[in-house]
Amino acid sequence: MAKNGVEILCVGTELLLGDILNGNARWLAQKLADLGLPHFRQTVVGDNTDRLMAAVREAAGRCRILITTGGLGPTPDDLTTAALAAAFDTPLEERPELWQEIQEKLSAGGRAVASSNRSQALLPIGADVLPNSLGSAPGMIWSPCSDFTILTFPGVPSEMRSMWVETAEPWLRQNGGASSAFVSRRLHFTGIGESDLAEQVGDLFDSVNPTVAPYAALGDVTLRLTASGSSPVQAEALLNPMEEKLLQHTALFCYGRDDDTLAAVVLRLLGDAGQTLAVAESCTGGALGAALTAVAGSSAVFAGGVIAYRNAVKQQLLGVPEALLDQHGAVSEIVAKAMAEGLRSRLHCDWGIAISGVAGPGGGTVEKPVGMVCLALAGPEGCDAWVQRFGARRGRSAVQQLSVIRALDHLRLRLLSQS
Amino acid sequence: MAKNGVEILCVGTELLLGDILNGNARWLAQKLADLGLPHFRQTVVGDNTDRLMAAVREAAGRCRILITTGGLGPTPDDLTTAALAAAFDTPLEERPELWQEIQEKLSAGGRAVASSNRSQALLPIGADVLPNSLGSAPGMIWSPCSDFTILTFPGVPSEMRSMWVETAEPWLRQNGGASSAFVSRRLHFTGIGESDLAEQVGDLFDSVNPTVAPYAALGDVTLRLTASGSSPVQAEALLNPMEEKLLQHTALFCYGRDDDTLAAVVLRLLGDAGQTLAVAESCTGGALGAALTAVAGSSAVFAGGVIAYRNAVKQQLLGVPEALLDQHGAVSEIVAKAMAEGLRSRLHCDWGIAISGVAGPGGGTVEKPVGMVCLALAGPEGCDAWVQRFGARRGRSAVQQLSVIRALDHLRLRLLSQS
Repeated sequence: MAKNGVEILCVGTELLLGDILNGNARWLAQKLADLGLPHFRQTVVGDNTDRLMAAVREAAGRCRILITTGGLGPTPDDLTTAALAAAFDTPLEERPELWQEIQEKLSAGGRAVASSNRSQALLPIGADVLPNSLGSAPGMIWSPCSDFTILTFPGVPSEMRSMWVETAEPWLRQNGGASSAFVSRRLHFTGIGESDLAEQVGDLFDSVNPTVAPYAALGDVTLRLTASGSSPVQAEALLNPMEEKLLQHTALFCYGRDDDTLAAVVLRLLGDAGQTLAVAESCTGGALGAALTAVAGSSAVFAGGVIAYRNAVKQQLLGVPEALLDQHGAVSEIVAKAMAEGLRSRLHCDWGIAISGVAGPGGGTVEKPVGMVCLALAGPEGCDAWVQRFGARRGRSAVQQLSVIRALDHLRLRLLSQS
Repeated sequence: MAKNGVEILCVGTELLLGDILNGNARWLAQKLADLGLPHFRQTVVGDNTDRLMAAVREAAGRCRILITTGGLGPTPDDLTTAALAAAFDTPLEERPELWQEIQEKLSAGGRAVASSNRSQALLPIGADVLPNSLGSAPGMIWSPCSDFTILTFPGVPSEMRSMWVETAEPWLRQNGGASSAFVSRRLHFTGIGESDLAEQVGDLFDSVNPTVAPYAALGDVTLRLTASGSSPVQAEALLNPMEEKLLQHTALFCYGRDDDTLAAVVLRLLGDAGQTLAVAESCTGGALGAALTAVAGSSAVFAGGVIAYRNAVKQQLLGVPEALLDQHGAVSEIVAKAMAEGLRSRLHCDWGIAISGVAGPGGGTVEKPVGMVCLALAGPEGCDAWVQRFGARRGRSAVQQLSVIRALDHLRLRLLSQS
C-alpha cells in the first residue's frame, strides 16, 4: 500500500484507563480537516516504551506524517522522545540552548529546576525543535527515515494548541503534502435540521470544489466548506461565492462562522445595538446565564437575572401574580410572559428572556409533558411568548440545553430584524 | 509477542474529521479498567472497508479480545460487519429471527421499514448475536480465529452502554481472560491536591491488592480501588477495609463514590436535613444553579436565586447597600456576605450561597487580581465568608468552575458538621 496522509498517535495511560476524554485527538482532527490534509487513523497507547515503539514503526510504514501528543514531561512516565529515538536507532543528544531555556522558564515561574527537567532538553540527533512558548516541554519535527516525519506535542491542551498554531500549521501548509492549498470555513446553523438544510441548499452538497459537508449536533448543524487551489488566496476566492450561495438559500438560519458560539453572537449584536439583557430561568436553572457569562466581556451587556426555580421566587423577585400561577401553572406562555416583563422592568434592561418548562424526568402531565418548555422574550417593541416541545425521550440535559439555544436564537432574530 | 489483553477499535469518519469527541472509547476504557482487564491500544479508522480490514487483522495478531464501536447502522456508510467478515474470509448469512425483530422494532417506533434495514440482520456464519434492546442495530460476539474474539457495538452511546451492561460485561467476566474476579470502586475527593492526598494516605498507594490509583481533574481527585479475588464477593471483601483505611486518613475530603457528583451529594444532604438552598451568583453567572438543576429532582430542595452580575442587580434584588459596594467593591467578603444574607432572608431559605469574583481575562487589579473570588455561605447558624485565589493563568472557565466546586464543598462540610 502506498504511504498516505497523516496519522495521530496519542500517548498516555490515563487515556487507556478512561480517566480523560481524548480532546486532543478531536482538536487535531478538526485542524487537519481544515487544512485539507487527509487523516486515516488515530492510535492511543499507554506510557510503555515497547508498545510506543511498535506503534510508531507501524505508522512509519503507512503514513507520511505522524503527529504525537503526550509523554514530553520530566517524569519517568514521560518516554515519548526516547522511545521514538530508539524506534529508529538514533541516539539522543542534549541541546544546550533548550536546557538554558527550560531553566529560565522554570525560574521565571518561581518553580524549582529539578535534574529530571534536563531530560526535556534531549532530542534525537537530526531533529528540529518544535518550540513550546507556554510550557517547559519542547516538541520536535523529525524525519527519521525517507518520506516520514514525526511532529511531537505535549499532552497539555493549551500548550499543544499554541505550538500547533505557531509552528506546526505553517509547517504543514508547506510540507503537508497537500498537492494544492486548502482553506476551510465552518458555518453554524440553528433552528433547522440537517435534512431540512440539505433540502434547502439543493445540490450544493454535491459540489466538488469547494466541498460542503454537514455535521449535526444537539440543536445545531455545522457545514464545513473546504476549497483547494494553487494558493490559499485562490482557494479562498472559491469559498466566498459558495458561502454566498449557501446563505441565499438558508438566510437567517446561519448564526455564525468558525469559532463563533450562539451566545457570543447574541452578545455582539446586543453590544452593537447598545442594548442590555437579563434572564429569568426556571427549568434551565442558570444554564442560560452560564452560557452568556462563559463569554469574556459579557458584562458589557448582560446584567444578570433571576433563577426562578420555585414559584415563590417567580412571585417575589419577578412579581408574577399568584393568581396567574394558580390559574395557568408555571409552565404556560402567560407566566413566561409575566416573568420576562417583570424582569425587564425591574432590572431596567432592554431585553428580558424567560424560560419555564418541564425538564424531566419527573413532573410531566398529559397536558404538559416532559420536554414542553414555554419561553418569552420582552423587548423594546413588546413581548412575545411561545412553546417548544422537545419530547420526553431526549433527557433532562438535552431539554435544558435546547431551551437555552432556542431562547438565544429568538433574541438573535429579533435583534437582526430591528437593525 | 504473545497475544495480550483487549483493544478498542472505533469506526467512524466523523471521528477522523473531529466532528465529535470519542466519548465511547473513554467509557469503554473506564469499564475495562473496572473489570480489571488490561487494555493496551485504541484505534480509530473511518468508514472504509480496506482500512477497517487492515486494522482488525493487525489487532487479531496482538490481542485476545477486540471491541468495536460504530458502523452497524443501515446506511451504505455502515460497513463494519461486512468488513470484519471479509477480513476473515467468512460469508455473511441472514438471521431470520433478527430480521423479524428489526421489523417489529421499527414498526413499534412508528418508523418505516426500509430494505436497507435488512442488511442489519446479516452476521458472519458462526457469530453469536449481541442483542441491542434499545435500537435496531444488533452487535455480535464472534471468534473468527483461535484465541481472538470480536464484540461489536453501534456508535450510539445509549445503545452501546446498555448492550455492554446487559450482555458484554457478564460475558467478559466469564471469558475476558482475567485469571481472577476483579471489582473496582472510585472515591472522589475535593479540597485536596493529588500530591497532598498521596502524602496523607502514605504507602497505601503501593498496595498490590487492592491497587489504589489516583487521577486529578479540575478541582477534583479520584482514587480508583481495584481488588482481585477468586470471586467477586471475595474481591469486594478486600475493597472495604482499604476504603476504610483511606477514609481514616482523608476524612472529609472524600465527597462521594462511583457516579456521585458533588452537586448531587449536596442536594442529598439537604434533602436528608429537610433544608432548602438558594444561590446568588456574580462571576459564575448561573453556573452554580445550572450544576444543581442538572440533577433530576433538585427542585425538592433548590429554590432558585439571583444572577447578580451587575451591581445594580445586587442592590435591587438582594438589598446590598450601595455604600458597601462603593466602599469595598463588589469583589469583597463583606459584599458576598450581604448577598448571601439578603438572598437567604428574601427567599426564606435555610441556606444562601453567594459568589463574587474576577473571572477574567479582563477586570483584574493589583489588589483584586484575576482569579480572586469571594464566597459567602449564610445558614441557620450564621454566615461565613472567605476568599479563594485561583490564579490568573487558569482561564475564565476554570475560575468559574472552581468557584462552583468550592462553594458546594463548603456547604457540604457545614451540612455534615450540623448533622
